[in-house]
Amino acid sequence: MTERISSVDVLDVRFPTSRHRDGSDAMNPFPDYSAAYVVLHTTGGASGHGLVFTVGRGTEIQVAAVRSLAAMVTGLAVDDLVADPGALARRLIGDSQIRWLGPEKGVVHMAAGGLVNAVWDLAARRAGKPLWQLLAGLSPEALVAQIDFRYLRDALTEDEALALLRAGVESRANRERVLLDEGYPAYTTTPGWLGYDDEKLERLCAEAVEAGYRLIKLKVGGNLADDVRRMGIARAAVGPDVRIAVDANQIWGVPDAIRWMRELDRFAPYWIEEPTSPDDVLGHAAVRRAVAPVKVATGEHVHNAVMFKQLLQAEAVDVVQIDACRVGGVNENLAILLLAAKFGVPVCPHAGGVGLCELVQHLAMFDYVAVSGTTDNRYIEYVDHLHEHFTDPVRIRAGRYVTPTAAGMSAEIVPATLQAYRFPDGPEWAIGAAA
Amino acid sequence: MTERISSVDVLDVRFPTSRHRDGSDAMNPFPDYSAAYVVLHTTGGASGHGLVFTVGRGTEIQVAAVRSLAAMVTGLAVDDLVADPGALARRLIGDSQIRWLGPEKGVVHMAAGGLVNAVWDLAARRAGKPLWQLLAGLSPEALVAQIDFRYLRDALTEDEALALLRAGVESRANRERVLLDEGYPAYTTTPGWLGYDDEKLERLCAEAVEAGYRLIKLKVGGNLADDVRRMGIARAAVGPDVRIAVDANQIWGVPDAIRWMRELDRFAPYWIEEPTSPDDVLGHAAVRRAVAPVKVATGEHVHNAVMFKQLLQAEAVDVVQIDACRVGGVNENLAILLLAAKFGVPVCPHAGGVGLCELVQHLAMFDYVAVSGTTDNRYIEYVDHLHEHFTDPVRIRAGRYVTPTAAGMSAEIVPATLQAYRFPDGPEWAIGAAA
Repeated sequence: MTERISSVDVLDVRFPTSRHRDGSDAMNPFPDYSAAYVVLHTTGGASGHGLVFTVGRGTEIQVAAVRSLAAMVTGLAVDDLVADPGALARRLIGDSQIRWLGPEKGVVHMAAGGLVNAVWDLAARRAGKPLWQLLAGLSPEALVAQIDFRYLRDALTEDEALALLRAGVESRANRERVLLDEGYPAYTTTPGWLGYDDEKLERLCAEAVEAGYRLIKLKVGGNLADDVRRMGIARAAVGPDVRIAVDANQIWGVPDAIRWMRELDRFAPYWIEEPTSPDDVLGHAAVRRAVAPVKVATGEHVHNAVMFKQLLQAEAVDVVQIDACRVGGVNENLAILLLAAKFGVPVCPHAGGVGLCELVQHLAMFDYVAVSGTTDNRYIEYVDHLHEHFTDPVRIRAGRYVTPTAAGMSAEIVPATLQAYRFPDGPEWAIGAAA
Repeated sequence: MTERISSVDVLDVRFPTSRHRDGSDAMNPFPDYSAAYVVLHTTGGASGHGLVFTVGRGTEIQVAAVRSLAAMVTGLAVDDLVADPGALARRLIGDSQIRWLGPEKGVVHMAAGGLVNAVWDLAARRAGKPLWQLLAGLSPEALVAQIDFRYLRDALTEDEALALLRAGVESRANRERVLLDEGYPAYTTTPGWLGYDDEKLERLCAEAVEAGYRLIKLKVGGNLADDVRRMGIARAAVGPDVRIAVDANQIWGVPDAIRWMRELDRFAPYWIEEPTSPDDVLGHAAVRRAVAPVKVATGEHVHNAVMFKQLLQAEAVDVVQIDACRVGGVNENLAILLLAAKFGVPVCPHAGGVGLCELVQHLAMFDYVAVSGTTDNRYIEYVDHLHEHFTDPVRIRAGRYVTPTAAGMSAEIVPATLQAYRFPDGPEWAIGAAA
């Protein structure tokens, strides 16, 4: 009997993080970290897990989208599916009717990404490898075949991608050993949420340095006087040698961004993240020219590879922040990693939320082993929330991600959490409503 | 008693247009024109109508999104709502949790647009005016107050928008008379669907010229030899003086677009529409440089004003194609009209589908009366399908839209259609399933 996808579960899971203002920033004062959580079941009793990260209201829309697309996955033969997840990605993203709702952006694109990531999780479990290692074991030809180059060739051709990947093949084994020994550098956003008071900010900054982090991040953009005060506290707490990134979460227009950053300049911020609309390639380029040598970073809301291509072509960013759940899954992130490598721009993944650290570490580690070949000036974001809900949670040691070795993409949520935090009927929400 | 929004109906309505390949193009071989149809009901017995156009599968996702956002509209006081639809637009688009699913793009943005348009329809009905006339009666200050300038000021400030609008105030009344007398120029896409054979193409081209059209549009991008043959037939049928636009519906990458258009150049196409990904501002600019003097047009999939801003800043388009249902409603389209006017680029709205002609005519006519002040090189797209389903259908006379005079935004669908075409349980779909 051919093993097939027998069913796809899609669950609305929400964590009431807004109660403590964890995750609070200039655009998201009260997020409830949530997920449209996906489980592919096979007739052979195997499973593949994925999720689309959300921040509360609207998760039901994301769930509806994943359920609609899931009809295109149910019944597929597992051997074919895991041998070529890119074929599924093209079908989901290219569906001639559903693409009207994007194309390649927003709810339907993230839904495709959640399903594609679940297929890669299933593929890695079957291979008995963590996803980063499965990917790093694929030939340059196999990797390139997983990417849709239709809209990318003016910046990156198949041949250029092959050449980039081939250059690193011989030294992959060496870097894999280094990665397993040393892990991957992390930075922490834990100290810097806007909703935290000065005392908590100062304490968490000091703790971050003590824990081994060389880069921390502060949220900015609420109030300029507050930002100046908080940057001063943070700089004093971490000293001159630890980098401080700041993150405006899209609160500004281009002229505001430039004005505001001039006021923070004296604290030597390392990068300004999301200074304006994530869609504004030319705006990012203008900000970058104005705030140099402060770097410009963006990506968590950059909705597809075509947008990343333009950010690179326009020299609009110094740091590419891929997100595991924003674009059309692993396949599109492979394209973005290769684009960043072609343009020589480091990738520092966006993470935090719920599950984002777990998923995206695999992409950064693959990038190190097979694409960029370096961790210089590269860090995966880390936030110390909600990891306990995963069966294979990330681990941090001395400011670095410990390289995962369990099979899969680390996306599986523990059953007790699914019971407790399902929305709207889980007991955690019933308690919250009563309180 | 204060009149309030008492309920919001959201219906999934689909038309089986794929059975005759009406609407077939290179990316949409078999569309079923559909809508997430919105009706606001008030405690006073009034109603406001809007819709989000879709092309079949996935309409249920769009319906789910409108339903989620509708919770933010129910209960609002109607006087406040119609006095300032922009306040609602900002709340719907800016919701700090739901915006994670965009921001300002795709399913959630279109859902906001559907609701905002329904509010404008309600406002125009209450005022007893067609929407174009309601808008053209607002002061420059009132219009500017309806626009969110946060991400636009590097290209267009409030003061610049005011100056543009003030320049046309005195002559508005004159243009309103001309508009009511003469209507607004249309172009027709009816002849050129990819699924039509050569005989039908030739016949429909000749009929279009006879009917008074001075611009027709052909779909291209399926097969180059077919396109060359079909362009030859069309050019012979319409003669040298009628303009022929071509539309690739995003099928190409940048190098393909340039190569393909060189082959069609000898037939003197007027514009190439959607040569590549709608997200690719820099790609459109590259195509435009390469194919001049053929113009580049895009917009039906351009997801917000930030993207239109960049298309203009980068000199990437010669023709701005606004769509009534893609962006966040009337308010965002006001911004786009003003951006186009600032950059001196004509607006030729996208229409067709179901309801798009009905809605967007109001925006083009407002643009003529109060913003651009001219119809030179401007045309509203027209396709002769599905108008019979509307209570106030568009009318065409001698290749021009007849200016609507009924109160509202012309978005109301007749009750029998809602019964017959509701999905999946309407009788038209039961028949289709049986056949």
